[in-house]
Amino acid sequence: MASLRFDSSPPFSTRTPTTPPAEAAHEPGTALGRFLARQFARLLGDVPVEIRLPDGTRHVPTGRPPTASITIKDLRIVPALLRGADVAFGEAYEAGLVDVDGDLVAFLEALWRRNLRAEGVGRRTLRARVRKRNTRASARRNIHHHYDLGNDFYRLWLDRELVYTCAYYPSPDDSLEAAQLAKMELICRKLCLRPGERVIEAGCGWGALALYMARHHGVLVRAYNISGEQVRYARDRAKREGLISRVEFVDDDYRNIRGPVDVFVSIGMLEHVGPSDYGTLGEIIHRALPEGRGRGLLHFIGRNRPAPMSRWIDRRIFPGAYPPSLTEMMRGVLEPHAFSVLDVENLRLHYARTLRHWLERFEREAGTVTRMFGDRFVRAWRLYLAGSQAAFLAGSLQLFQVVFARGEDNHIPWTRSGGGAFGGAPAGPHGTA
Amino acid sequence: MASLRFDSSPPFSTRTPTTPPAEAAHEPGTALGRFLARQFARLLGDVPVEIRLPDGTRHVPTGRPPTASITIKDLRIVPALLRGADVAFGEAYEAGLVDVDGDLVAFLEALWRRNLRAEGVGRRTLRARVRKRNTRASARRNIHHHYDLGNDFYRLWLDRELVYTCAYYPSPDDSLEAAQLAKMELICRKLCLRPGERVIEAGCGWGALALYMARHHGVLVRAYNISGEQVRYARDRAKREGLISRVEFVDDDYRNIRGPVDVFVSIGMLEHVGPSDYGTLGEIIHRALPEGRGRGLLHFIGRNRPAPMSRWIDRRIFPGAYPPSLTEMMRGVLEPHAFSVLDVENLRLHYARTLRHWLERFEREAGTVTRMFGDRFVRAWRLYLAGSQAAFLAGSLQLFQVVFARGEDNHIPWTRSGGGAFGGAPAGPHGTA
Repeated sequence: MASLRFDSSPPFSTRTPTTPPAEAAHEPGTALGRFLARQFARLLGDVPVEIRLPDGTRHVPTGRPPTASITIKDLRIVPALLRGADVAFGEAYEAGLVDVDGDLVAFLEALWRRNLRAEGVGRRTLRARVRKRNTRASARRNIHHHYDLGNDFYRLWLDRELVYTCAYYPSPDDSLEAAQLAKMELICRKLCLRPGERVIEAGCGWGALALYMARHHGVLVRAYNISGEQVRYARDRAKREGLISRVEFVDDDYRNIRGPVDVFVSIGMLEHVGPSDYGTLGEIIHRALPEGRGRGLLHFIGRNRPAPMSRWIDRRIFPGAYPPSLTEMMRGVLEPHAFSVLDVENLRLHYARTLRHWLERFEREAGTVTRMFGDRFVRAWRLYLAGSQAAFLAGSLQLFQVVFARGEDNHIPWTRSGGGAFGGAPAGPHGTA
Repeated sequence: MASLRFDSSPPFSTRTPTTPPAEAAHEPGTALGRFLARQFARLLGDVPVEIRLPDGTRHVPTGRPPTASITIKDLRIVPALLRGADVAFGEAYEAGLVDVDGDLVAFLEALWRRNLRAEGVGRRTLRARVRKRNTRASARRNIHHHYDLGNDFYRLWLDRELVYTCAYYPSPDDSLEAAQLAKMELICRKLCLRPGERVIEAGCGWGALALYMARHHGVLVRAYNISGEQVRYARDRAKREGLISRVEFVDDDYRNIRGPVDVFVSIGMLEHVGPSDYGTLGEIIHRALPEGRGRGLLHFIGRNRPAPMSRWIDRRIFPGAYPPSLTEMMRGVLEPHAFSVLDVENLRLHYARTLRHWLERFEREAGTVTRMFGDRFVRAWRLYLAGSQAAFLAGSLQLFQVVFARGEDNHIPWTRSGGGAFGGAPAGPHGTA
C-alpha cells in the first residue's frame, strides 16, 4: 500500500482509513481509467506527477520526471475531483482515497503555482467569495474548533514557548526555538517598547509574547483571547513565572477591548476577524490608543491581492478565516482613522520555514497524534501543514508585519537602524527637533 | 511693513508686490474689520496666531501666545479667504495681500493639524476630488511647468547632485548633501542591486540616481524623463563622468518604457501619474520585468488615506499631481499583477527635514530668485516649500518607499540585516533551501 514520505522524517505508518472504500472490488475497466486519468492530468496542468490508478496502471502526463506519485484508490472519486478540486481533494486525501508518494510539499507547491498562473493577470480586482461575518458566538466556536484541541497536542510539535505563528529566522539555519524567540524580540523592537508602557495584545495564544514583552521590555500587558484552554494555560504560566502583576490574561472577545494604552499588538488574529469586521477592529484600536499618540503592530497571513480562502481549509481547519490583501486590511482597519503606516515587512519565506519545522515535528509524533485523534485527523493536519508550507513557497500566501502610529504623532522612530526594523534607539520627537 | 522671518535665515527683503492693492486707501471701518477678523479667526480655529488688520488693530483670538502674525493688508480679500481658504490664501499670499510674520512653517503646521482634526474620523473612505487624467501632452506640459524652470534655479538651493526628492538622514544632524547620497545608497540596498543587472528608472530628474547605481553598483541603467532640460543635463553629466556606455537617458514618456530588465525603480514620479493611469503603470512594470522574476521600488509622496490635493498647489506649483494612499497605489499598480509587497518604509519626517534644508537654502538665495523670476514667484515658492514641510510635520503628507517583487519569485532577501532595509547580503533562492 502506498505510504507518504517526507524528507528527514520516517514514513507515516499507514493504517486502515477510517472511511474504507468497502466495495472497491467493483473496479471500472482500463478504458474508463485512462479517460479519467487524462481528465485529472488536465486539471493538474504542468505539475510533474505520476498518476497511479486502481488497476495498477501509471500515467506521467507531462513527460517530465515526476516529483510525486498520486495514487487514486477508487476511480469513483475522480468526477468529484474534477468538479471541485480543492474540497474534493482534501476530503479524499483525509479519507485515504487519494495518496501522495514522494514530496508532498513540492507537489502542492507546483499545484499552487499552477493555480496562480491560471488566475491570470488583469486590471480587475478579484473579489473574495468568503465574506460571512463572524459573530461573537461563531468566533468563539471557530476558535474553539482549532485552538482547543488540547495543549498536549500542540506541545507535541510547537516550540517550547508554544508560539503558533510565523517565526523569524535571522539565519535560515536557525532552530525553531531560536526563531520564535527572535520573532518576539523583532516585534518588541519594531514597537520600540519602553519600560512602564501599557500594551494590549489582541489574540494572545498561550501567552508567550505577552510574557516576553513584560519580562524583557518591562511593559504592562493586557492580553485577550477567546480560547479558554489557552487563557488558563497562560494564566498558570504567568503565576509560575512571577509575572502576574504585569500581565493580565482576559478571556474575552477583542470587541470588548478597552484602553487607553500606549501600544496595540495583534499577532495572527486578523485572519480570524473577517473583512466585515475590519471597521470594528479599527474602531477598537482607535479607542484603545490615546488621542494623538500611540502605535501598533499587526502581524497576519495575507495575499498579494484579494482571493477566496481554500474551501477545504475553511471547512476542516480554520472555519471563518480569511487572509486579506494589504489593501483590504489598510482600507478596513487603518484608513478610517488615518493611522499612518510606518513599516511593512513580508516574512513569507519565514513562514514556509516555520511550517517545515512544524511538519517535521508533527511527522515524528504522528503515531501519538493517531492514537489521540485517529488516522483521518493526522492525514488532514498533514495536508494542512504541507499545503500551507507550499502556499507560502509558491507565493499564494504572504506574512505581513505592519507597524502603524497615530497620523499626527511625531514621536516615531527616525530610522530602522540598530537591528530589527525600528532599531534599538528609543523613539523621540524628531519632527520639531 | 511686515516681513517674513525664518529660523536661521535672513529676513526676506520685501519689495513692492507685483499686484499692488492700488486703491487700498478705500478702507472699511473698524466695526467691519472686527467682524471679518472674527470670521477669519473662526476659520483658523485653535491655531495660535495674531491677526493684524489694515487699520492697525491686532486680534489674538485663541488667547494663547501666537507663534505668528497674519497681516491682512486689504480687508476686501477676507470674504474670498472665508469661501475657499486654500486657493484664496495662496493667491493672497503670493500677491503680498497677506503676510506672515514669525514662524511660517509652525503656523502652517498648526493649520494642517487643525484641518486634519476637522476632517474627523469615520468608516467611510474619502474620495479624492482630483481625478483628471494626465495625457501624454498634458503630462509633458505639467512637468515642463515645474521642472523646466531652469537648472540655474534648482542649482541655487538643491544639493550638489541635484536630487529633487526626499533625502534620507541616517542621523537627524546630517547635511543635505550627505542625506541625498545616503538616500541613493538606501535605495540600491533595498533593491539588492548586483553588477551587470539591467535597471529601468522611470522619471530620473537630473540623473543622479541612475549615475549612482551605475557607478557604485555596476548596473546598466535606462532612465526615462519627459523634462527635456533635465535629460540634456543628465546626458552631459554621463558623458563627463565616462558613464555613457552604462547609463542611457531617454527623453520619453514612461508609457513607452520597454524591458526586459531585472529591476524597475521610480523615485518621485508616481505623484505625477494620477490614479487613472495606475493600471497603465502597473502594466508597464509587468511588461518590463521578465516572467516570474524581477523586483522594483516605488518612492512617492502619499497619504494616510485618500484626500484631495491642495488646490493652490495643483494650480500654481504641481499641475496634475496627486499623492495617493498606499491602498490606492497598491490596488492600482501592484495588485492587478499580483506583485508581492516585500517592504514599506515611511520617511515622512525625512521629507520634512529635506524641505527645511531646501527652504533655508532658498531663503539665502531669495534675492537672486527675485531677480530671476520676480517677487510673486519667490513668495509662491516660499509658501510651497514651507507648506510642504508643514504638511509632512503635521502628518498630512507621507513619504513611502515600497519594495515589491514578482509574486512567484523566491529570490528575495531573507532578512533586512546588513544595514539599510534589505541588507548587503546578495539575495538568493531561499525558498527551497
